[in-house]
Amino acid sequence: MNQNKPIRESETHVKVATYQYNGQRHVGIVDVASGTVSPLDLSADEAQRGALSLIGRPSLPATGAAVALDDVRLEAPVPRPARNIFCVGKNYFDHAHEFSNSGFDSSAAKGAVPSEPIIFSKVPETVVGPEETVLIDPDVSEAIDYEAELAIIIGNGGRGIAKDKAMEHIWGYTIVNDVTARDLQGRYSQWLVGKSQDTFCPMGPWAVTADEIDVADTAIRCTVNGELRQDSNTGLLIFDIPTIIATISQGVTLMPGDVIATGTPAGVGIGFKPPKYLVPGDVMEVEIDGIGTLRNTCGRWGA
Amino acid sequence: MNQNKPIRESETHVKVATYQYNGQRHVGIVDVASGTVSPLDLSADEAQRGALSLIGRPSLPATGAAVALDDVRLEAPVPRPARNIFCVGKNYFDHAHEFSNSGFDSSAAKGAVPSEPIIFSKVPETVVGPEETVLIDPDVSEAIDYEAELAIIIGNGGRGIAKDKAMEHIWGYTIVNDVTARDLQGRYSQWLVGKSQDTFCPMGPWAVTADEIDVADTAIRCTVNGELRQDSNTGLLIFDIPTIIATISQGVTLMPGDVIATGTPAGVGIGFKPPKYLVPGDVMEVEIDGIGTLRNTCGRWGA
Repeated sequence: MNQNKPIRESETHVKVATYQYNGQRHVGIVDVASGTVSPLDLSADEAQRGALSLIGRPSLPATGAAVALDDVRLEAPVPRPARNIFCVGKNYFDHAHEFSNSGFDSSAAKGAVPSEPIIFSKVPETVVGPEETVLIDPDVSEAIDYEAELAIIIGNGGRGIAKDKAMEHIWGYTIVNDVTARDLQGRYSQWLVGKSQDTFCPMGPWAVTADEIDVADTAIRCTVNGELRQDSNTGLLIFDIPTIIATISQGVTLMPGDVIATGTPAGVGIGFKPPKYLVPGDVMEVEIDGIGTLRNTCGRWGA
Repeated sequence: MNQNKPIRESETHVKVATYQYNGQRHVGIVDVASGTVSPLDLSADEAQRGALSLIGRPSLPATGAAVALDDVRLEAPVPRPARNIFCVGKNYFDHAHEFSNSGFDSSAAKGAVPSEPIIFSKVPETVVGPEETVLIDPDVSEAIDYEAELAIIIGNGGRGIAKDKAMEHIWGYTIVNDVTARDLQGRYSQWLVGKSQDTFCPMGPWAVTADEIDVADTAIRCTVNGELRQDSNTGLLIFDIPTIIATISQGVTLMPGDVIATGTPAGVGIGFKPPKYLVPGDVMEVEIDGIGTLRNTCGRWGA
């Protein structure tokens, strides 16, 4: 999938991974070139919070001996957000049109392209890590879809954050696959249930600190079983990141560690005729330049 | 407001309060007749969780010496839910009609009365206690409304909970005032932001254990400045409590301590012509038979 635009990888990006090693959770700095991760000197309690344990620290803790990434099990960088993940809907033009035409848009009172951000949430327990299985339960939904998204991790919280100060409130970024049960999204009008099905928020493979990517011009792609489905750029968001932060925080105090998924570009399963829904065995890979690739396989509940 | 149907109060109801006394958070059993609360023998860490500290215990811890309710400061029984509060929209017939006619119903694709439950969330930090101030910020919203609701507190979590087993998963009930910024509810299509404004979830005055009220026939009322605005019965829910629990848990594992607000009856501010929005100084009292009265005053941000 990299033939058009190779992923930019640079050792100068600070990538923060949460992972299991020797039966314990660790937080460490990833070195992609050498394929290693170096654990940060954190207490076991601190490490439980994953990458969030670094928020508010003036400098990174010292690191221990590097371990091969192949020898650890990566977890979501934020294994359990402290409250529901904020998500933005219909935030790329092409996707707004494909979704409005799909028949599942239960809140499209205002036409295909929203005049204001659409903000909903996913419960924190939806989060699963890289390589973890997204579970499909045919008794619950037969219309499960992927959504590649850039996610913000808030560093400094606040209320009434102005657009021109918004970027200063970001600690870092990660990748989220906002897996969605389209039939439930439509059936229950509000999107919470369709978005919050167990295992429906793969996150990872790690977080990067805020200064490490230029969100005004960063490629985002998604493949399913190697087929390129989504291929866009975060610079094409309808409502940019400062607008999203200003909109939520106008009256809802943002907290350190809040995760905000910024929306998905065109190419989701319902954008095809007939729709290309996920089935057990499907392999989803979401890739964002400067972060990496989040890979998850679909499985069947109870199998 | 009690002239039509006096509130049922009985010493046999087990009412669990969270409160501040001597500079510390306590959890205790309320005796309404004597106007006292008896602290439960919990560690300070346990007491931080409020009423949730009792979930999963085979019996109540011993109680200490009773203290007058007048000498404590009641807090929300669940001071900080572990994730967003689940809420049900348009779940009484009369309210479904008044809301659909208000012009703010951004997701009413299917007419006034929903064919399936509408489920959304409020962030946990919206929760404030009895007597705490609901803050109105005229720079953010000019259309703030009250919503009297019975709230469920989940005891045993689970996925795929059948309707006929749903009541066994309830630990208790409390009262929630689902305060809403109507203009934001409409503007952002999905209701999260309009429902999650800071201080917009008064809860209390305490919780009652599940066996203490009959939710199929319990009166619910709301007054504003002493004027009766909402006057209904939880038996009139369109989607009853077993249906709500079964709907959410079909694919979203419910967790012990989850709070689910079940919807509000007719008589909210937008039901009047012209609408009766809240203004600083307004006193809201939400009363549910067998629980008690949740009283909050509106104030102005920054005042």
